[in-house]
Amino acid sequence: MAVGQSVFPMMPPIDGVRLGTAMAGIKKPNRRDLVVIEVPEGATVAATFTRNAFCAAPVHVARDHLQHVAPRYLLINTGNANAGTGARGRQDAESCCASLADLAGVDVHQVLPFSTGVIGEPLPVERVAAGLPAALESLSETGWALAAEGIMTTDTRIKGATTQVELSGGTVTINGISKGSGMIQPNMATMLGFVACDAAIDKPQLQQWLRDAVQVSFNSITVDSDTSTNDACTLVATGRGPAVETPEDERLFRAALTSVLTELAQAIIRDGEGATKFVTLDVEQAASVDEARTVAFTVAHSPLVKTALYASDANWGRILAAVGRAPVEDLNVERIVIDLGGERLVEHGGRAESYAEETGARVMAQEEIIIRIQLGRGDASATVWTSDLSHDYVSINADYRS
Amino acid sequence: MAVGQSVFPMMPPIDGVRLGTAMAGIKKPNRRDLVVIEVPEGATVAATFTRNAFCAAPVHVARDHLQHVAPRYLLINTGNANAGTGARGRQDAESCCASLADLAGVDVHQVLPFSTGVIGEPLPVERVAAGLPAALESLSETGWALAAEGIMTTDTRIKGATTQVELSGGTVTINGISKGSGMIQPNMATMLGFVACDAAIDKPQLQQWLRDAVQVSFNSITVDSDTSTNDACTLVATGRGPAVETPEDERLFRAALTSVLTELAQAIIRDGEGATKFVTLDVEQAASVDEARTVAFTVAHSPLVKTALYASDANWGRILAAVGRAPVEDLNVERIVIDLGGERLVEHGGRAESYAEETGARVMAQEEIIIRIQLGRGDASATVWTSDLSHDYVSINADYRS
Repeated sequence: MAVGQSVFPMMPPIDGVRLGTAMAGIKKPNRRDLVVIEVPEGATVAATFTRNAFCAAPVHVARDHLQHVAPRYLLINTGNANAGTGARGRQDAESCCASLADLAGVDVHQVLPFSTGVIGEPLPVERVAAGLPAALESLSETGWALAAEGIMTTDTRIKGATTQVELSGGTVTINGISKGSGMIQPNMATMLGFVACDAAIDKPQLQQWLRDAVQVSFNSITVDSDTSTNDACTLVATGRGPAVETPEDERLFRAALTSVLTELAQAIIRDGEGATKFVTLDVEQAASVDEARTVAFTVAHSPLVKTALYASDANWGRILAAVGRAPVEDLNVERIVIDLGGERLVEHGGRAESYAEETGARVMAQEEIIIRIQLGRGDASATVWTSDLSHDYVSINADYRS
Repeated sequence: MAVGQSVFPMMPPIDGVRLGTAMAGIKKPNRRDLVVIEVPEGATVAATFTRNAFCAAPVHVARDHLQHVAPRYLLINTGNANAGTGARGRQDAESCCASLADLAGVDVHQVLPFSTGVIGEPLPVERVAAGLPAALESLSETGWALAAEGIMTTDTRIKGATTQVELSGGTVTINGISKGSGMIQPNMATMLGFVACDAAIDKPQLQQWLRDAVQVSFNSITVDSDTSTNDACTLVATGRGPAVETPEDERLFRAALTSVLTELAQAIIRDGEGATKFVTLDVEQAASVDEARTVAFTVAHSPLVKTALYASDANWGRILAAVGRAPVEDLNVERIVIDLGGERLVEHGGRAESYAEETGARVMAQEEIIIRIQLGRGDASATVWTSDLSHDYVSINADYRS
């Protein structure tokens, strides 16, 4: 199940960025499970990674390789996360990078590895190596959709977003693909995201802009509060298109980047495991952005709120109780206002006078629901997106060894 | 569904503590939904309450009344939480106290109100008032089991615990009852607990001992991470039995009190909504008790760990990922050791060499499971109890307006 319509967009090619896939039989046969993304020489690459202390072997290796040289290849496999695999896991990730480096004629440090799938099984490196020639063979600037398919695990849809933005020096194209459906919580995005553009941006700048955009997109979604061991988002800037020169260029570029990342992040929630609802939590009038995020995530993680959303039950008492237990000092409930789909639900510490059950029922019956919480403490705000908790979520996670 | 056997214990009477019940039709007819507990003159009463900012009207009123005089009556209703009811809710709670005070001939401040049930509906005060004479009529020192039934909501079992302890001045009896099944998380116990003993203890001491015992019992359980608006635990010491005189008396009494509270808290988890497993999380070698609790609750709240427990799937990768995302600075995964039912699962950042899937499967098939996590950071520890996340949990909470 997934929420809303989904159409994979037409992706304009980005000069020099080529994507190839192969069926390497890593976990199952006849499944596109190996993806290679080629980055042109001279490109800059930024990346953010999971903050899970048990981060996977490829995360260690990718972080390390990024210190050395500019990457030329991203190597992604599904079916196996190469996580919880200790020292051997790192050797395996290095070995896969070496295989690709040999075939492509680059240094091993110029390959960044990414894995997603089952935790704790040794990575079948020989299958990865055996699949590489086919993946390289299929490299193409039009390979975005196949690559989006190749990075899926429990996803039911391929996820992509694209935009173009007019800078002073010309048009910049930004393309991105993502995967993720369960084990979705921020820090970082509990997913994989690969984004490329043709702008010319130096690495420190690119890294900062990526980090900021990730914070309000991938780090603002949650399906089940579980942060994966393998999350990563990379951003390539080929440098073959215009530079980001003026402050207005920067504003436009960053807004475009954020919109692509937000669309990719929201696609993960729409495809959240067992999701039947797409829920936007807007927390306003907080003393700080951190506080706003804390309240939003407390509500978004509440199993009672999530089951009420699943049941289309406007059980505002559960929303109120979740806000009330958020770890925020001296929350004054008299000042808190909660709106559901634009209808006033809670004010003055209780149910709003104007609220009618029929209104709540009508709002909750919709697939897309906005919950707005005003704390009356300041002027900071944050938005978090989440899904509901359904029978299918339990079935998927009680049946699937992920 | 509930985990394990349950037998309501024989409760020795505690001189002067009488319990009465009535069917007041607060939400449904023919249901014991009103409970009065009479406390003898001269008794001391301690209490702890929810830390939810949206705490219910009766919590405000009970806290206030406790400041004034020693309570003589505890008045409990189910079917309606009188929470999220604003100023009117407090008037309603006061009004119920006044009705009982009138009938019993005590001051209104000598009545403490407690409510549990649906949030956000006005309390039907006239039904409470109409039920009071029958409840008072039935007051009895042997009323513990009926009172335990009278405080149930989605509970499937009545919950009680009792113990006796030999102090230097003679035998002290401690009896307790509790209710709770969903919306269970610490801060405070997301439940109601009423405990009485015949020891002689002054109020500051009693309050301190109750707070300490609640921390390692009711505040160490979680079903679904949702802290209720109405949680409360009261402890009555009638003073008609022996005093707690020597340091050894204190040690014995506090151990006995903690054991009663722990048994009542564990009964809530065994009866957790949809529970098919009773899970003990022992976190050891932490730098502080807070840190140990943080790690334990992060694992206990993980929907992926909870669905794996439901599926009897020894999916240790999910446990490892949950530990890894706990908000603890500089967690060194190389030092972390995780045991499942006494079997080594994780060490050196990955799956233990000695671990076999069959062993994990055997442990996970059991109803009672112990997960032990050693952090290698210090010598503090904490224990938390939780249940799994089943289809029944979703059904109960998607169907029930609680």
